[in-house]
Amino acid sequence: MTLLRTHTCGELRRDDTGKTVTLNGWVDTRRDLGGVIFIDLRDRYGLTQVVFSPQDDPEAHKSADQLRPEYVIGVEGEVRERDPENINPNVATGDVELRVKKLVIYSKSETPPFEIKDDVKTNEDLRLKHRYLDLRRPVMQRNLMLRSAIYEHTRSYFYQNNFMEIETPFLMRSTPEGARDYLVPSRVNPGKFYALPQSPQTYKQILMVSGMDRYFQIVKCFRDEDLRADRQPEFTQIDVEMSFVDEDGIYQMTEGLMKRILKETMGVEVQTPFPRMSYQEAMKNYGSDKPDTRFGMKFVDFSETVKDSEFRVFSKTVADGGAVIGFVVPGKGSLGRGVMDRLTKRVQDEIGAGGLIYIKNNEDEIYSSVSKFVSGDNTRSMVEESGAEKGDLILILAGSGETVYQQLGDLRLMIADEYDMIDKSKYNLLWVTDFPLLEYDTEDGRYYAMHHPFTSPRKEDLDKLESDPGNVRARAYDLVMNGSEIGGGSIRIHDSEMQSHMFNALGIGKVEAQQKFGFLLDAFRYGAPPHGGIALGLDRVAMLLAGVGSLRDVIAFPKNQRAISLMDNCPSDVDPAQLEELHIRLAPSTGKK
Amino acid sequence: MTLLRTHTCGELRRDDTGKTVTLNGWVDTRRDLGGVIFIDLRDRYGLTQVVFSPQDDPEAHKSADQLRPEYVIGVEGEVRERDPENINPNVATGDVELRVKKLVIYSKSETPPFEIKDDVKTNEDLRLKHRYLDLRRPVMQRNLMLRSAIYEHTRSYFYQNNFMEIETPFLMRSTPEGARDYLVPSRVNPGKFYALPQSPQTYKQILMVSGMDRYFQIVKCFRDEDLRADRQPEFTQIDVEMSFVDEDGIYQMTEGLMKRILKETMGVEVQTPFPRMSYQEAMKNYGSDKPDTRFGMKFVDFSETVKDSEFRVFSKTVADGGAVIGFVVPGKGSLGRGVMDRLTKRVQDEIGAGGLIYIKNNEDEIYSSVSKFVSGDNTRSMVEESGAEKGDLILILAGSGETVYQQLGDLRLMIADEYDMIDKSKYNLLWVTDFPLLEYDTEDGRYYAMHHPFTSPRKEDLDKLESDPGNVRARAYDLVMNGSEIGGGSIRIHDSEMQSHMFNALGIGKVEAQQKFGFLLDAFRYGAPPHGGIALGLDRVAMLLAGVGSLRDVIAFPKNQRAISLMDNCPSDVDPAQLEELHIRLAPSTGKK
Repeated sequence: MTLLRTHTCGELRRDDTGKTVTLNGWVDTRRDLGGVIFIDLRDRYGLTQVVFSPQDDPEAHKSADQLRPEYVIGVEGEVRERDPENINPNVATGDVELRVKKLVIYSKSETPPFEIKDDVKTNEDLRLKHRYLDLRRPVMQRNLMLRSAIYEHTRSYFYQNNFMEIETPFLMRSTPEGARDYLVPSRVNPGKFYALPQSPQTYKQILMVSGMDRYFQIVKCFRDEDLRADRQPEFTQIDVEMSFVDEDGIYQMTEGLMKRILKETMGVEVQTPFPRMSYQEAMKNYGSDKPDTRFGMKFVDFSETVKDSEFRVFSKTVADGGAVIGFVVPGKGSLGRGVMDRLTKRVQDEIGAGGLIYIKNNEDEIYSSVSKFVSGDNTRSMVEESGAEKGDLILILAGSGETVYQQLGDLRLMIADEYDMIDKSKYNLLWVTDFPLLEYDTEDGRYYAMHHPFTSPRKEDLDKLESDPGNVRARAYDLVMNGSEIGGGSIRIHDSEMQSHMFNALGIGKVEAQQKFGFLLDAFRYGAPPHGGIALGLDRVAMLLAGVGSLRDVIAFPKNQRAISLMDNCPSDVDPAQLEELHIRLAPSTGKK
Repeated sequence: MTLLRTHTCGELRRDDTGKTVTLNGWVDTRRDLGGVIFIDLRDRYGLTQVVFSPQDDPEAHKSADQLRPEYVIGVEGEVRERDPENINPNVATGDVELRVKKLVIYSKSETPPFEIKDDVKTNEDLRLKHRYLDLRRPVMQRNLMLRSAIYEHTRSYFYQNNFMEIETPFLMRSTPEGARDYLVPSRVNPGKFYALPQSPQTYKQILMVSGMDRYFQIVKCFRDEDLRADRQPEFTQIDVEMSFVDEDGIYQMTEGLMKRILKETMGVEVQTPFPRMSYQEAMKNYGSDKPDTRFGMKFVDFSETVKDSEFRVFSKTVADGGAVIGFVVPGKGSLGRGVMDRLTKRVQDEIGAGGLIYIKNNEDEIYSSVSKFVSGDNTRSMVEESGAEKGDLILILAGSGETVYQQLGDLRLMIADEYDMIDKSKYNLLWVTDFPLLEYDTEDGRYYAMHHPFTSPRKEDLDKLESDPGNVRARAYDLVMNGSEIGGGSIRIHDSEMQSHMFNALGIGKVEAQQKFGFLLDAFRYGAPPHGGIALGLDRVAMLLAGVGSLRDVIAFPKNQRAISLMDNCPSDVDPAQLEELHIRLAPSTGKK
């Protein structure tokens, strides 16, 4: 017998009283109160209280006795209003209950290894191994529903804007420039390999050359990297490319998308256009190329003020071309010595700075942690320059070049976190622009493209491409939300001559360029439109909107940090016959046990 | 200088006359008429005539002289109505032209290796190599736009029906049951391999066990098969799974989808529910499990009538358990001897039947090709039984078991094609149901699941699972459109006990079952809902709707029949260092030159 549902477990309301309905779902909890059995029946839409009483149906009541958590059942019965004292205002269906007339047990359940509830106390490995149970937890269901809603609104947005959704290949050519490729051996072409895409970059540019004009795709990409907490071997990208646009065209389209997503999934209205900040500005003011602007504490540069200080940490740093910089922590001038010592230790241990200098600008005194070495005048000038109010704390680092900016940037985040200074209801989006085109790798002794080798340099900087490559700015941009980079892109080179200059700057010769990117260069010989695009990290966006700390909580079946899926235990050994067909063997040291 | 477009090349109408607009696009054709240069400017939205005259702007006119096909340009100018004699009614913008005031050449083009037009005469290899040019052809742009529209309407349909879109992994466990897997070596887990999904089957069932209830995904799948004309190593599936449903629930949801797609992309209204036909019925009546019902010619079984015939081909076939079957070809009784001989030869060469028997039921006489052996009475009985009208032709095959049905099915299609009997404007959809659960492999001496090992048997046939496995019907169904299978699915087993019976029938032992499908069996121990689903071949659907003969014409970047992408020349050699990192080597015979 089957009892297919007429309603979901989140649907019944007072208005349904008197109706005969059928529900299907999982037994969430079961209570036996003096011969009457109460079940909370659960599905992804909600919970409904289901009542088995001997008066309603003796047979169903008898069967209900064997029900245990996670049994899957179908129940038919009558919707009744609950007695006023039994109404549950915390549940959407809390006004009613179902008095059961018929029960079908679809399947039984062993006792699950952990409870199916939001605040489960278990280790993540067990959750990943039994992912089918973990995904039953309401919080995971909400996360995946949120993710599904992001797909939906992203897609409807692009369809409405006349974008074509086009699938690009997963089996493509390996071009080892950037991260490591995942390789796929070819059976029918012995000794040859496909690579899984790190991104559909070259294909989307080819699509622009093909005249497709406005392309988008939500697509899996792959990088064989050593995994950190926030990386997965496969990840999902909202991939976009447009022809006949400049930066403004890309910004506007992307802003519309984020506005739509935030409104539809979170009910949040964000203002467009988003603020823009150059990479230089971001580093100078926040020590980060992805500044979190939900709170202040912008940097102050004290270098000029302290360059002649008798305190050698200050004067020598400045003389060596470094900087003395800091920021004001509002209202924290009262922190005690013990707290400041602990903070100093964290700065040394976690951020790697040599030490932390601070000034407490209090009503009664201005206290400097280096008052032994720095004159009172100097300290007062710093306070004034910082704009600190009475009662504020100033934190200061001294050091060389980019390092000290990054360290102070880390400190800024640490302080904001420590003192809960971040308004979690805010969604601050901004563009970081004008990234350097190239970065120098001291180990390899060559420049690498910071973004990728098809990124267009800024026209004004073109003459520096050979003379001063490190200072050429790219027409590249990142989209930052709440201190996380959620996307990045660029206006591309569409001219084969400029592309040659770029390869020169990268030390990629003609032969190598032709070998690695030949088909794209060939395409450019037949009329390429000006074009640019962006790729947004969908996993990251989902994680930020879900307010969770791990990508694994917004991915249905993630890998762990050893790139292993604990549920199906892969990667796994394979049959030697499979390898033989693929014309490969294991290297001797990895021979099977 | 850039001139970003204000309009597309398909947009300008008489109402826009007098406006100053900017267009961007590719030079399609160029004509120089007595000092005035006419360009058809092309983008994916259409063509617009663009006019450079020395009167409008001498400089633009001068530059226009160098324009050649496929140059990418931007033009600013004034929209003018064309003179009545120059109006082009075949083009949406044919009432107007753009008189150019400014021209920017974004990029030049070498002479393309083939013309950018629909009816290009070139071999497919050249088209695939220069896919960026091939995709500029309006027909390919239309195909990809159609495909994009299929994504759009599929997705909006499922979102509206409260389906969750969930991505399943691409790096999964290899389970060599069915086609060959593509393997991906793991770097961080030496000697172990991932497989690319042949389908997300196990994951979508896990999602049902997780309570996700209604899942869909448009997803790439991979099969390492020897390629036929209509196969690709990677293909796209509309993947669907639902809990708490039976066959009707799946049928209804799928019918709604197809109705929506056909209406939105082709403007065609199809009637729902779709007809249903059992596998048995389909084989008996059409000799195919995917009958094309756009035309008739249903089979007639003459076995009973001819079982005692003096003609041994008839009587022995029937005595040996075979069948004498045929169908009526309306109005073809007048075909001459020569035509019938050629047809007989094709039946022998292309279909593999021993010979073709026919009766011409003409006004003046009933002519039988085997009148020497078969009595006139017998022949007249056959005509009567067939329901043939005067002027009709009856084609007849005799043979054993399934073979003769399939051969007659092939003949039916051959005749329909030869005599153009198919109404191409029709979209006939039907369900083929009640497939056999298992098929016997004589070579391996065991049964295999016809669909997959998780397909539920029909309850009425359960007792035959061990005694008479070949006659157990599955709760499996295919969706057929115009004689092509466009999808298939089943109600799944959700009960571990029934699953054990199934593995028994397949000769898969407990250990093997646990090793191959352990995580799914584990999941079933914790409360699995009744569930079922379907997977539709999106490439196939797009191909049928686009009315093209090859999947490659609806895939942006397909592989050829050797699984090679001619554009980027992959698969390719890779760096030995890459293989070393992956702990694999090439088998000696494939060593690199």
